[in-house]
Amino acid sequence: MADTYVLVHGAWHTGAELEPVARALRAAGHTVLCPTLAGNRPDDDRSRIGLADAVASLVEFVEANDLRQLRLVGHSYGGMVISGAAARLLPRLARLVYVNAFVPQPGESLNDMVPPHYKALFDTIAAANGNAVMLPFAIWREAFINDADHELATSAYAALNPHPYRTFTEPVALEQPLAALTVGKSYLNCVLDTALPASLPWHPRLSERLGLFRYVECAGSHEAWFTQPTALAQAIEAAGRD
Amino acid sequence: MADTYVLVHGAWHTGAELEPVARALRAAGHTVLCPTLAGNRPDDDRSRIGLADAVASLVEFVEANDLRQLRLVGHSYGGMVISGAAARLLPRLARLVYVNAFVPQPGESLNDMVPPHYKALFDTIAAANGNAVMLPFAIWREAFINDADHELATSAYAALNPHPYRTFTEPVALEQPLAALTVGKSYLNCVLDTALPASLPWHPRLSERLGLFRYVECAGSHEAWFTQPTALAQAIEAAGRD
Amino acid sequence: MADTYVLVHGAWHTGAELEPVARALRAAGHTVLCPTLAGNRPDDDRSRIGLADAVASLVEFVEANDLRQLRLVGHSYGGMVISGAAARLLPRLARLVYVNAFVPQPGESLNDMVPPHYKALFDTIAAANGNAVMLPFAIWREAFINDADHELATSAYAALNPHPYRTFTEPVALEQPLAALTVGKSYLNCVLDTALPASLPWHPRLSERLGLFRYVECAGSHEAWFTQPTALAQAIEAAGRD
Repeated sequence: MADTYVLVHGAWHTGAELEPVARALRAAGHTVLCPTLAGNRPDDDRSRIGLADAVASLVEFVEANDLRQLRLVGHSYGGMVISGAAARLLPRLARLVYVNAFVPQPGESLNDMVPPHYKALFDTIAAANGNAVMLPFAIWREAFINDADHELATSAYAALNPHPYRTFTEPVALEQPLAALTVGKSYLNCVLDTALPASLPWHPRLSERLGLFRYVECAGSHEAWFTQPTALAQAIEAAGRD
Repeated sequence: MADTYVLVHGAWHTGAELEPVARALRAAGHTVLCPTLAGNRPDDDRSRIGLADAVASLVEFVEANDLRQLRLVGHSYGGMVISGAAARLLPRLARLVYVNAFVPQPGESLNDMVPPHYKALFDTIAAANGNAVMLPFAIWREAFINDADHELATSAYAALNPHPYRTFTEPVALEQPLAALTVGKSYLNCVLDTALPASLPWHPRLSERLGLFRYVECAGSHEAWFTQPTALAQAIEAAGRD
Repeated sequence: MADTYVLVHGAWHTGAELEPVARALRAAGHTVLCPTLAGNRPDDDRSRIGLADAVASLVEFVEANDLRQLRLVGHSYGGMVISGAAARLLPRLARLVYVNAFVPQPGESLNDMVPPHYKALFDTIAAANGNAVMLPFAIWREAFINDADHELATSAYAALNPHPYRTFTEPVALEQPLAALTVGKSYLNCVLDTALPASLPWHPRLSERLGLFRYVECAGSHEAWFTQPTALAQAIEAAGRD
């Protein structure tokens, strides 16, 4: 079955970092696109861009490419963006796939779902950097890409870009809970993911907000896009198929 | 070591659907039997048959075959049935093995252990169908056989049969908690199982009712009998051996 | 990268039982030492030796061998010992690695972290055996080495030695929480470990006491040293590397 996928990156990433997974999905016969959201492009104004801008850029991308029967996959922060775009894109959607991704309730921001010490850390970084935030390397290495060796942890970190903090603080615009949206939903959980602490986890805390959903697991950390691209592509296919 | 196993199916199943796993266990040298419980046979009266009838049919089967040093394996609803039969079969038992199965306390019914929305759903279905219940395909596909492709999800669903609801609502007859039963006990958890939600899980919520028990894991969903029969057979052997 | 590891055994073990894992790490180019702690040596006085003695024996071992850039790995009870030794060895340490190991808060004993029925059991055994405790075979077989066959479960049990109970009851001497210690920290969790019950688990209950830490998983039970030595060695390397 040849399906159409759009992979939506997380904070600090662009679509380019998802290409190894996209290539593996294309090798299985699928059409796969990896746009870079507003806010993470080279010349974007990080001081200004918020969640609504990122959502609008995704909606525009899907409509401009006239995509249909779409499997819309969001990673991490990308879960905020596909959630915000879902209602507007509904007639074009076959399924939403959350990959260790945030699942907001109406009116929630990403910051409403993270531990207080993350919010405190990023508040400080944003205040000192014109509202752009970077992830300190120590946290990246230990808690985000815990399954990489030091060389990969370092090279992957070098690919990241400063992230517009308003996308973390701005509430999502949702008219109803995602559980009420009549579209297929899957949650893919990378079992070594500790980007959120196990005591405040992705699954089942956030996944069960989807109502009836399909649960899939994958090896690897929050950054399995770098460390386990082939396994992650297979898991995305198991999550995204009919 | 050649052991004797009886595999006890879950709701909506018969012994026939367990045959792929049984064949893999037989290939490892074991004797394996897969009876179909009262209530799930073609001509059984689904309006009337309850848990005590299903338990009696299992006891009768084991006694009629004069099985000894038996590893009695129950899947899902089958956990209610092996629990109800255990005390009567005790001299014949080497070990009880629960495979993502219900472990009741004395006086509990299966419905006492499921989420309220399952009970509400099945109450409605039973009322409209002469006390027989079927599992809606959407729930089957997303939450029970989440690791299958669409073709296998569909063909496996076609093998199911209407289930007598009194086996869900009738309390089990137990004289003492299963933890007090002096027989080996194992709990086998298929790690992708979402037939019960992760917030109200099989393990450790139900497994720890066994007291001292052996924990084993397997790949796959609640329906690993269809999707992972070889892995499941190996895990049952690891759970069932001395 | 050739690193230096010291593997610190758990209760009832000596360094000898860790040798299969040590050999696999040495085959990957590392220097690996497996001392036996005070209290578990053949002629040690089990009635007298406590946690401070075991900690002192580890500090002495590391200093006598003048080890530097050390990856200090503690298993189970060994987590108490590396925790107690860490501050004194700090200039020599590259990283602490806890393998299903106890992570104490200042002033806690091992017994403060186990289920009440374990404490009651060991109190009774210690009182009857001059303050030395053994682990009953049934608990060992079902809850500690659940992934072994009966032959390995039996032969591994024969290698154990009586353990000095004062190392379980004596509080650890820590000047500050381990989270405040400026050294790399990893927690390695063997996914079938049921030596502590899943409702009172190693991870995240104890692991998150480390503050920022790297999480790694491995196949196998609490006794993966016997059942999964190659996989455990690879996981220790993933946990211990920079």
